[in-house]
Amino acid sequence: MAVTIKDVAKRANVAPSTVSRVIANSSRISEKTKERVRKAMEELGYHPNFNARSLANKSTKTLGIVMPNSAKIAFQNPFFPEVIRGISMKAYQEGYGLYLSTGQTEEEILEEVKHMVYGGRVDGILLLYSRVNDQVMPFLIEQKFPFVLIGRPHNIDEEQVTFVNNDNFKAAKTVTEYLMLLGHERIGFIGGNLDFVVTIDHMKGYEKALSNANIPVRQEYIVHHEELLEGGQDAVIELMSLGERPTALIVADDIMTFGVLKMLADMNVQVPKDMSIVSFNNVMISELSSPTMTTVDIHIYELGFEATNCLINKIKLPELGEQQVIVPHKLVKRESCK
Amino acid sequence: MAVTIKDVAKRANVAPSTVSRVIANSSRISEKTKERVRKAMEELGYHPNFNARSLANKSTKTLGIVMPNSAKIAFQNPFFPEVIRGISMKAYQEGYGLYLSTGQTEEEILEEVKHMVYGGRVDGILLLYSRVNDQVMPFLIEQKFPFVLIGRPHNIDEEQVTFVNNDNFKAAKTVTEYLMLLGHERIGFIGGNLDFVVTIDHMKGYEKALSNANIPVRQEYIVHHEELLEGGQDAVIELMSLGERPTALIVADDIMTFGVLKMLADMNVQVPKDMSIVSFNNVMISELSSPTMTTVDIHIYELGFEATNCLINKIKLPELGEQQVIVPHKLVKRESCK
Repeated sequence: MAVTIKDVAKRANVAPSTVSRVIANSSRISEKTKERVRKAMEELGYHPNFNARSLANKSTKTLGIVMPNSAKIAFQNPFFPEVIRGISMKAYQEGYGLYLSTGQTEEEILEEVKHMVYGGRVDGILLLYSRVNDQVMPFLIEQKFPFVLIGRPHNIDEEQVTFVNNDNFKAAKTVTEYLMLLGHERIGFIGGNLDFVVTIDHMKGYEKALSNANIPVRQEYIVHHEELLEGGQDAVIELMSLGERPTALIVADDIMTFGVLKMLADMNVQVPKDMSIVSFNNVMISELSSPTMTTVDIHIYELGFEATNCLINKIKLPELGEQQVIVPHKLVKRESCK
Repeated sequence: MAVTIKDVAKRANVAPSTVSRVIANSSRISEKTKERVRKAMEELGYHPNFNARSLANKSTKTLGIVMPNSAKIAFQNPFFPEVIRGISMKAYQEGYGLYLSTGQTEEEILEEVKHMVYGGRVDGILLLYSRVNDQVMPFLIEQKFPFVLIGRPHNIDEEQVTFVNNDNFKAAKTVTEYLMLLGHERIGFIGGNLDFVVTIDHMKGYEKALSNANIPVRQEYIVHHEELLEGGQDAVIELMSLGERPTALIVADDIMTFGVLKMLADMNVQVPKDMSIVSFNNVMISELSSPTMTTVDIHIYELGFEATNCLINKIKLPELGEQQVIVPHKLVKRESCK
């Protein structure tokens, strides 16, 4: 038979309501009584029902994680497991559990977020992506529900939102400048899905660096692909079919770069001799490509850790204003540029 | 102000207790009344508190996911995101959410599992790994708590546990036979962590195939490494330093194989001309190695999907006996064998 609050109360020689207050850690109970009740709970093996406690405390000690739609694309990218690793570490340290969204479409995800919020299922939400015209963020703002965005908001005042981001504009500008310093002028850009704010920031940084150097931006050198495995390969076919081929490529994502390297090898284009490549993210397998790739380390783990830290602060101190954190990036030079 | 059950009752012209019964979907309420109450809930924007409903129903509609200890190692392996993708899909279809363990050590994980079980936080648990002398499984068996293992149990009667697994013994035996048919006799084996049951099964299959062919098992050809990124590279150094080098390698994991290919390229050992390689898992980036790797597709997504299906069945029909499901594997021939 399950141990009840009454059993604990009897053992500790207090009223059942006192046991309830000890579970809720009420300041109305003396430390001495708390100790006695907790000892009785331990001896009897009593565990308060989590849902009852959540109801009483209005706290679930759980954080919701909302992934972009299409779990297939999301989970294909090692960015997500690594960011969740950073989230897990901080959540564990602070005694929070994680609740994962499983919706596959934008509508399903919005429905799930509504369930999390209305149903009191989580104390706060981490949005792992920033999409153009996203529905989830306006909903959370309207509900005044604690959330933190990884990325930056689009079409929403930045001061209204707590977010943790890289300076993706600057990162893309820097890698473009780096390639120009190596002597490249014909620099191709293989970007990700234009629905994501990070893609827009990358492209603006690339264009800014070129125009600063008085190099015209050539539209035929800019290719966007969403698909991580085939996208890089398809982009290479497009760019290598041009009359005047680029001599260097900026690729939005390390996994795409694997595809780019593979397709270039198939075409007998040597990297870095005939083509230089810079990539973004520095996921863990980036050091295993042939040649190893030069890439921007965006410190994915820290993005997750820092975002969770901000969210827990927001939950604990609702009066705290919104915070904007920029996690620094770092160009990791390996073998793919010349 | 939040909408309450009383507001809904007033609007629908029923007693508050009737509203509660409609929320619990009681058979004592007519469909007509249910419809009227639900319409009132919708019009007023009433959402029952999830924790209150969980308390009443003794159901959380949530599944716990328990990862192996050290989130770093786990998330480094694309196996885990892919298996969670399969889990997500099935969970979403059946209206379940996912709760993720975040503990870093074996002790922390066991503590978390106890919280999930005692606290009524989840309806069932998915164990994503099978470790020798694991503490979690005996605890769940003792508690008679619904769980499904991905992998197979160790030192526990298989009939006592519902699990979803590949036939890893047979898969390893088949790839060894495949390499022997290609003419190889000196076959190295680069295995994973010996604490995991899959590693033991792989090794037994490899040894069985060799002994069936009267080829002695040479201990110096068997190397075990846990670390996915450096492990493969270190193993190659060990094996290539032997007086009589192997001409073929079986590698436990595709990510390790990236390291193996990289180190062999650095040593100017050509694959498949000088060294044939077969790997396991067929994670999504396996097709992007140079040369592309021949590997055993273990259908990771299906493992997750099927395990979730079994778990939900167990939750819904506790009287159902334990089930053992073997997901078929398939050798995917690419460019790394000769």
